[in-house]
Amino acid sequence: MPPSIITLTTDFGRDSPYAAAMKGVILGVNPAAVLVDLTHEIPPQDLRATSYFLTATLRYFHREVIHVVVVDPGVGTERALLYVEVNQHRLLVPDNGSWTELSQEAAPRPKVIALAENQYWRPTVSRTFHGRDILAPVAGHLSLGLDPELLGKPLQKWVNFQLPVAQVGEDGVAGEVVSVDGFGNLVTNIPSQLLQRCPPDEFAVFVGGCLVRRFAATYGAVEPGVVMALVSSTGFLEIAVNQGSAARELHAGVGTPVALKPVRLA
Amino acid sequence: MPPSIITLTTDFGRDSPYAAAMKGVILGVNPAAVLVDLTHEIPPQDLRATSYFLTATLRYFHREVIHVVVVDPGVGTERALLYVEVNQHRLLVPDNGSWTELSQEAAPRPKVIALAENQYWRPTVSRTFHGRDILAPVAGHLSLGLDPELLGKPLQKWVNFQLPVAQVGEDGVAGEVVSVDGFGNLVTNIPSQLLQRCPPDEFAVFVGGCLVRRFAATYGAVEPGVVMALVSSTGFLEIAVNQGSAARELHAGVGTPVALKPVRLA
Amino acid sequence: MPPSIITLTTDFGRDSPYAAAMKGVILGVNPAAVLVDLTHEIPPQDLRATSYFLTATLRYFHREVIHVVVVDPGVGTERALLYVEVNQHRLLVPDNGSWTELSQEAAPRPKVIALAENQYWRPTVSRTFHGRDILAPVAGHLSLGLDPELLGKPLQKWVNFQLPVAQVGEDGVAGEVVSVDGFGNLVTNIPSQLLQRCPPDEFAVFVGGCLVRRFAATYGAVEPGVVMALVSSTGFLEIAVNQGSAARELHAGVGTPVALKPVRLA
Repeated sequence: MPPSIITLTTDFGRDSPYAAAMKGVILGVNPAAVLVDLTHEIPPQDLRATSYFLTATLRYFHREVIHVVVVDPGVGTERALLYVEVNQHRLLVPDNGSWTELSQEAAPRPKVIALAENQYWRPTVSRTFHGRDILAPVAGHLSLGLDPELLGKPLQKWVNFQLPVAQVGEDGVAGEVVSVDGFGNLVTNIPSQLLQRCPPDEFAVFVGGCLVRRFAATYGAVEPGVVMALVSSTGFLEIAVNQGSAARELHAGVGTPVALKPVRLA
Repeated sequence: MPPSIITLTTDFGRDSPYAAAMKGVILGVNPAAVLVDLTHEIPPQDLRATSYFLTATLRYFHREVIHVVVVDPGVGTERALLYVEVNQHRLLVPDNGSWTELSQEAAPRPKVIALAENQYWRPTVSRTFHGRDILAPVAGHLSLGLDPELLGKPLQKWVNFQLPVAQVGEDGVAGEVVSVDGFGNLVTNIPSQLLQRCPPDEFAVFVGGCLVRRFAATYGAVEPGVVMALVSSTGFLEIAVNQGSAARELHAGVGTPVALKPVRLA
Repeated sequence: MPPSIITLTTDFGRDSPYAAAMKGVILGVNPAAVLVDLTHEIPPQDLRATSYFLTATLRYFHREVIHVVVVDPGVGTERALLYVEVNQHRLLVPDNGSWTELSQEAAPRPKVIALAENQYWRPTVSRTFHGRDILAPVAGHLSLGLDPELLGKPLQKWVNFQLPVAQVGEDGVAGEVVSVDGFGNLVTNIPSQLLQRCPPDEFAVFVGGCLVRRFAATYGAVEPGVVMALVSSTGFLEIAVNQGSAARELHAGVGTPVALKPVRLA
């Protein structure tokens, strides 16, 4: 039997006792669970960043893994807590749209259960920390083989939010920065396939008001300090600076418009 | 047999080779040990923060777990290193009071052993890193089943420091902020039971000089930006701002006085 | 059989999906692999810091452990990816010198293989993330017992960079700060053995322009706030301030010259 892997993705911050408490609860239910920290540094309560993070990481995990996601500004309110099977991934997550992007790619339709059976929860449930009191023990039980059907009733509707989608027009493509990594690389929502319509000798990339003329295959293909456009490791248009930070260089961040526009070579 | 779980709590910082070295030493003694990072981001040498962190997390772990705690400003001096059993938790910790809060709740009295048997240590012990050279290998041996009695002699006295306790008076309750979490929520030392003596229509919360009139069950129960008092997930009075930071909003931090005082509804 | 321990050392940052993706890939190849985070906080693309970090940590791990190191400014260029056996440690690392310091101590000569056999890689290899697409799956296969010889051909030459070595002259020793830890302690490249030639009553330590007269056995041996020289936990001259930060106090950082010079006791 493969070990029972449970990952954790939260916005608690690295100095927080909250993630530690969740680990204790999970290991209390299943001492043989294998815990894997994905991140505890989602920007506080940032559901869109959570959605991007999950899309960029979950595809690399095999399907038996259980992913516990706690970015939960609505904790203690009426919002449901969900067990989700989407694209063969298994999530425990508040119903707040933080898995929106995963759900949009889903085929077949996601299977969603609203957690209701409190015999799988901690005996006392606080109003402000359902990650510890509900999601963590449920993850422990699932990792021991509990049938998810026993957790509650199937749900047909759940929260989704609108994600910015790159727009293709007659004169190019308009998208935006959806993520800035630790190097200052700007990952956009423009799929690399769209780049093929825009040959580098006829199109240029605009990040905010800045023109990026150079296309490259990888960072080290240009001189240090040069701004370039390239295909990100997840298959999207990315703007980077070799040995530097595109975010700093171009004063750009999440939400900065990025466009591919035809240029006249003067 | 359940796996041998060993947790780590330090002030080394996330970029430090010190925690990594400890992991290597533990796994060298017991390659099957399961390592769980609680945090490496205790503020440097902050024993009170350590004490708070341990109290907020250890209660969620089951008793076989071994907790290694290295916040150790006195490393290499005469201070002892301890094996502790307190409230069914097992700790390895310098004798500097960093488990004060746990010891105060203890029933029965904690069992404490001063580490003395150096056959369970690394062959060479540095003067500046006993976490790596003494606590890590001892944790490895304990996780293999070593009887703690073999580590050294029982100790009857150990270091404790004075923790601020909320004071109940005729006109309310006086406490202080003991922890600020990553969201800027202010956790106080005022137990939620005391709130029952102070009905919300007759009492208000003062954080420093700021009046907090709103009581809520959870963050999302008030409008975004509103300051509220609520019961923390560990059972204490907490001050929070829905989708905001109470620490920033109220210019408050660890040590800021928090009081429940009667208010005249004008 | 001991578990298959795989450590991760990267410059991705703690909020990055990149380390999480690598964990998914490794566990996809070997679900029983035991992942250990060493750090994800190497300063971006800092090969010298990587080299120092590996030297300060790998010596504490036993030899079966596989260490994956991804600080890779040259990703996607011609630079090779290496399997390395050095001082009984096993590394997967880009050929960029980030293990320079380990290689210099090596006896016997390191065994190095250039990764070439792509049946052990992910089916699709991006140009910008070989850690995920090549090193992670190879680590998974090695942890399952794959013979490293099958990964590619032996290499006789690899990248090394010049590390600053402490110079011994007639009037003392000249070195520099090679690392600053989370406490602000300055670790130098001056081996503690050289201190024996420089008795404390005849020599003093200069950090940049600042004189450090006090030698101590450990931090707590001097009063709070006092600057001292001592032997680091890895056996080098270190400058520290009891309950303070030597980096801040002396305005020093990586590269700051540190010298032992004879002083005339006036």
